[in-house]
Amino acid sequence: MAKKKPIIGISMGDPSGIGPEIAVKALAKQEIYQICNPLIVGDSGAIKDALRITSLPLKINSITKVKKGLFQFGTLDVYDLKNVNMAELKYGMVSAMAGNAAFEAIKKVIELAQNNEIDATVTGPINKESINLAGHHYAGHTEIYAHFTNTQDFTMLLAHENLRVVHVSTHVSLREACDRVKKDRVIKVIKLAYEACRKIGIKDPRIGVAGLNPHSGESGMFGNEEISEIIPAINEVKALKIKVDGPIPPDSLFSKAKGGLYDVVVAMYHDQGHIPLKVVGFNWCEEKQKWDSICGVNITLGLPIIRSSVDHGTAFGKAGKGTASELSLIHAIEYAVKMAVN
Amino acid sequence: MAKKKPIIGISMGDPSGIGPEIAVKALAKQEIYQICNPLIVGDSGAIKDALRITSLPLKINSITKVKKGLFQFGTLDVYDLKNVNMAELKYGMVSAMAGNAAFEAIKKVIELAQNNEIDATVTGPINKESINLAGHHYAGHTEIYAHFTNTQDFTMLLAHENLRVVHVSTHVSLREACDRVKKDRVIKVIKLAYEACRKIGIKDPRIGVAGLNPHSGESGMFGNEEISEIIPAINEVKALKIKVDGPIPPDSLFSKAKGGLYDVVVAMYHDQGHIPLKVVGFNWCEEKQKWDSICGVNITLGLPIIRSSVDHGTAFGKAGKGTASELSLIHAIEYAVKMAVN
Repeated sequence: MAKKKPIIGISMGDPSGIGPEIAVKALAKQEIYQICNPLIVGDSGAIKDALRITSLPLKINSITKVKKGLFQFGTLDVYDLKNVNMAELKYGMVSAMAGNAAFEAIKKVIELAQNNEIDATVTGPINKESINLAGHHYAGHTEIYAHFTNTQDFTMLLAHENLRVVHVSTHVSLREACDRVKKDRVIKVIKLAYEACRKIGIKDPRIGVAGLNPHSGESGMFGNEEISEIIPAINEVKALKIKVDGPIPPDSLFSKAKGGLYDVVVAMYHDQGHIPLKVVGFNWCEEKQKWDSICGVNITLGLPIIRSSVDHGTAFGKAGKGTASELSLIHAIEYAVKMAVN
Repeated sequence: MAKKKPIIGISMGDPSGIGPEIAVKALAKQEIYQICNPLIVGDSGAIKDALRITSLPLKINSITKVKKGLFQFGTLDVYDLKNVNMAELKYGMVSAMAGNAAFEAIKKVIELAQNNEIDATVTGPINKESINLAGHHYAGHTEIYAHFTNTQDFTMLLAHENLRVVHVSTHVSLREACDRVKKDRVIKVIKLAYEACRKIGIKDPRIGVAGLNPHSGESGMFGNEEISEIIPAINEVKALKIKVDGPIPPDSLFSKAKGGLYDVVVAMYHDQGHIPLKVVGFNWCEEKQKWDSICGVNITLGLPIIRSSVDHGTAFGKAGKGTASELSLIHAIEYAVKMAVN
């Protein structure tokens, strides 16, 4: 008998954004059903409208118990929270109603994973302003997950194809990012990167650690964080027989990782990792004046449950048109499956 | 009658490195002779050996006056300095002899351009250590050019296909790079970027200016250099009717520029610009354990003569094998031609 396919809960995101339409577009691919049993968590009315928008000939199975899921290609199983008033919903608009629906879907998908009713969670894009208007005061998904799973120490893995990045710091000024390059934190992030790779099935991960300064400081000529913090951190992790190289000059490391030399990169600050990921994964089309493909994946590390996410927002400007790309969501589902299986 | 083709002087670089072999490989392309009259400046013995290494069926026309150049495809015109002792030369090794030969080639190509005997200069890769061993104490090409052309204010334009970047700072620590983001310097670099685009034939350049901090600081939430320095600089340049946008979040700007939304990017620090350029232009091949293509171009702005360069080093590890890619040199020649024609 074939190995049981994992059940992947997909929170549909803000119903005023592209979340519902990319969810139905992704689940219109038979390949997804070959690797998992997908379950949309949200509102069946919003999903029905997403089918109208995308002209996809799929059926809906509205359920309130996971075991009622059919998990058959052609029918969308929707864990139906019945919390979107479609008469009131406006695509591309901030609203408390939509924000509340998005929040409840996240809360439910976390709960289902905590109860082991589903094997992993994937989140669609939300609008921070709408969530806050609805009275749920969180900076984003990660904070909601941290709260409901009671997690203190977490970080993100961003991935595009074989380029994977974990950050030492993210949303702080560049000056503060320099201050945050400390031996202990670098060690912790290298270990999180190692664990993350193991969780997606890479048995003996090769980790490339970036320098902070150009050319990794050229032996202290411009900047000494490599000497004082990064090299000692790398040496300590090497002693654990983890395959770790560095500090590697930041401007060559990402090409090497993209080429397959490393399974994961430890980046010292937000843009060091985000710039190459977005250059590889996002393509701005001058002719159409829009992003041609957005296909990064965002994985939260350190949680007791599995969570992956699209690496883009609600794209209010294009919501309701059926033109948004489902590629990032497909990749997020694939990553969630890998982690659930490993 | 067709417009006269510009004469492009190509200094062959360090003879122990890949410079001579990529020069002959580039000039083995008929397309190069269709756009310019190329002249190698260096040593004919080294070029002869490069032909042996690459098995290319080209002839050599050794000259000591530019007007003796034939500029015909199939024959390499070499401005012959007769300064490489081939019996002594070892590929991949640092030596004063090779360093001196490389230095003299640069000095000569500058002199020929200053005398208007050639229209532009293109430089092959040199080894800093060899140059210094030979008693020529310069940090690199740019400093040699600055010295012999008596130039104080210069900067670099790095280019790969339609992604072009000018930097506010380069070889300084990331902390110092933050300090160097000052209104006056940002204005100067925006103007240099504008002039550079004009020189390569872009009539009304669209300039994208990066922020320093992630998300450009999100209105001062993490970092305020955008508010205190970058925005005032952009506003001052806008008043000159130059098309300039920004500050743009660094992690989306480079994708947009690559997609054609901007002709040139003003980067706030070394790696902000170098990471995306190298991710796009350098491809590390895991199978072969080497760079598959290295094709960036480096243009020095602010000099009284035209100079473009390959964006890679002497690659001592592969020198003498004939396997090095000539792509970066071809692009450097193409850029020099564009600037000479405009």
